Amino acid sequence: VLPRFFVPQAETTGSVVALPDDEAAHLIHVLRLKPGDAVRVFDGRGREWSARVGEIGKAHARVQLDASLTPIAEPQVVVTLAVAVLKGDKMDDVVRDAVMLGVRRVVTLLSERTEIAPRLIQRGQRVERWRRIAVASAKQCGRSVIPGVDAPISVQEALAESSAAPRIMLVEPGANEVASRRLRDLPRSQEAVLFIGPEGGWSSREVELAGAAGVHFATLGLLTLRADAAPLVAVTALRTTWDDL
Amino acid sequence: VLPRFFVPQAETTGSVVALPDDEAAHLIHVLRLKPGDAVRVFDGRGREWSARVGEIGKAHARVQLDASLTPIAEPQVVVTLAVAVLKGDKMDDVVRDAVMLGVRRVVTLLSERTEIAPRLIQRGQRVERWRRIAVASAKQCGRSVIPGVDAPISVQEALAESSAAPRIMLVEPGANEVASRRLRDLPRSQEAVLFIGPEGGWSSREVELAGAAGVHFATLGLLTLRADAAPLVAVTALRTTWDDL
Repeated sequence: VLPRFFVPQAETTGSVVALPDDEAAHLIHVLRLKPGDAVRVFDGRGREWSARVGEIGKAHARVQLDASLTPIAEPQVVVTLAVAVLKGDKMDDVVRDAVMLGVRRVVTLLSERTEIAPRLIQRGQRVERWRRIAVASAKQCGRSVIPGVDAPISVQEALAESSAAPRIMLVEPGANEVASRRLRDLPRSQEAVLFIGPEGGWSSREVELAGAAGVHFATLGLLTLRADAAPLVAVTALRTTWDDL
Repeated sequence: VLPRFFVPQAETTGSVVALPDDEAAHLIHVLRLKPGDAVRVFDGRGREWSARVGEIGKAHARVQLDASLTPIAEPQVVVTLAVAVLKGDKMDDVVRDAVMLGVRRVVTLLSERTEIAPRLIQRGQRVERWRRIAVASAKQCGRSVIPGVDAPISVQEALAESSAAPRIMLVEPGANEVASRRLRDLPRSQEAVLFIGPEGGWSSREVELAGAAGVHFATLGLLTLRADAAPLVAVTALRTTWDDL
């Protein structure tokens, strides 16, 4: 398997492009590639090339884009994951897994029961970290599209965004006083926004707001899922239900 | 929500039973319950009771089983997860998630590409640890059945066990030279054994053995899944495909 590099500037087959600093460092110091070595390059927007290493410096490297490759097809069901920020570094795995499961965009939410302070998210440069993880995960799983990761917004703000796609809020069995259905009983679509709550679940106010905004409520089985496993389970179940896995 | 205790000795409604040591310690020192407090008790085999705390000592506690409760129903699809042991403590999450997703039994495998030495598993008392995690996960997710976790065996030994249920081996897209199908194209069943490989995937010999043993091969999407996320994704996809989620 050829090493893959993420080069957002890649555009024209035949051209020579410089690698971003961190990708160059990886090529030079970790993989220790030499001019002429065969690699792959993708632009993060769905294009991929077979390429060759060109000029290498101490901290920079160039590659020549030899030929366009057919990238791994994106899922047919376009999922936006609107997920409440979890404690500690649990979001790292959520983002990594979301990319691996073909999620198109990750919207991070500060819900009422989110247990991490917005200032910690900012100070810890978490959003930048999640974006780096999205890149790493795309490289690892073979995907040529890197999903965007949005900086945290409130549930109210997220619900205020207009959406042509059906929106589905995952609720725990019996936890919120709301009529929920199984995924297979929801209207089928090629696109969806999946709302997934934090460790403590949604507040009644958030559930009310969602209901008023026309969001569908869904449960997954009878057992209580761990908050950090719920996104993976929900995306898998949705794609499977809609024949995409 | 009432605290739940795992009491394998529980059997007769109306009787008084002693809690296992670790459950007693949890009741006394962590939750600081008092005689008369209401709790729930389950036996790990599918029965559950409303109960009351009885006599408490320094290191022991008794509960009175007041009335039988209807436990959360087990999944309709009975899944045995036959999973290759992963590196580090990744199996902890695999076991935790398997219980939460209703897996009936976990068989751990030493595959050819398993990167952890059998002696480390033994010295580290890993199997005992995984069994404790299975108990903790069942308590947390509300399940009243605690799945067994088998000590590691080879893939060959696992394949030699007779199975009335269809056996499905998850293979990476394009990784093994084998005809694989999507889960929805496999014969539908109420029971299955799911084989999931280690970080490096299955060896060609293992795939050959499985093929000769009549195992079905399946892929999940086109992207490469992380080894520690694959069990969760596969069990979810299988239960969804067979209308159980």
